[in-house]
Amino acid sequence: METKELTTEEKNCPLEKAVRAISGKWKIAIIWQIGKGEKRPSEFLRSIGKADRRVLSQQLSEMVTDGLLIKTAYNELPPRVEYTLTPKGENLVKILWELNEWGKQLHD
Amino acid sequence: METKELTTEEKNCPLEKAVRAISGKWKIAIIWQIGKGEKRPSEFLRSIGKADRRVLSQQLSEMVTDGLLIKTAYNELPPRVEYTLTPKGENLVKILWELNEWGKQLHD
Repeated sequence: METKELTTEEKNCPLEKAVRAISGKWKIAIIWQIGKGEKRPSEFLRSIGKADRRVLSQQLSEMVTDGLLIKTAYNELPPRVEYTLTPKGENLVKILWELNEWGKQLHD
Repeated sequence: METKELTTEEKNCPLEKAVRAISGKWKIAIIWQIGKGEKRPSEFLRSIGKADRRVLSQQLSEMVTDGLLIKTAYNELPPRVEYTLTPKGENLVKILWELNEWGKQLHD
């Protein structure tokens, strides 16, 4: 969802905050994949198809900052990075499952 | 949420359909206001602040097409138009209330 100029009221509105936290080309797709058990950017890139790696990593770090994901870097060669859901991220996945159910009622 | 080029799989994914149905600058704000009892475009324009009337009416008609809203035009002078939620729209409002709750956990 494009973020429009925000009034102070909008900035404090929890729904606006929630929508901003999940706006961004790949955020819902990423959270959805992690909710299904994927952990590594290479997996997200494969399952999300035409995601741009740079945009993907930008959105991953925004979601870490927002407290939705935990990033774990393993001290190995080659380097390995994994993302998992925080409790806040898990709660979002539950809402996305409801949105997914709701989407089944929509015709094309 | 910007809609990216869709693979066939994405087109059929209920979550993608749901996100597309609520993407658009004012759709969530409109649904939210109707869920709080507002009915008329003039009310939405007032409460959503800087909404553009033309874009607002485009998004209202998309939501009627998607089966989220019912448009009722009253044969009066001046003409009066009201929008109300369909059951599908009401179900969406329930999910938005949960997203609103979830948004309360997000810091600024």
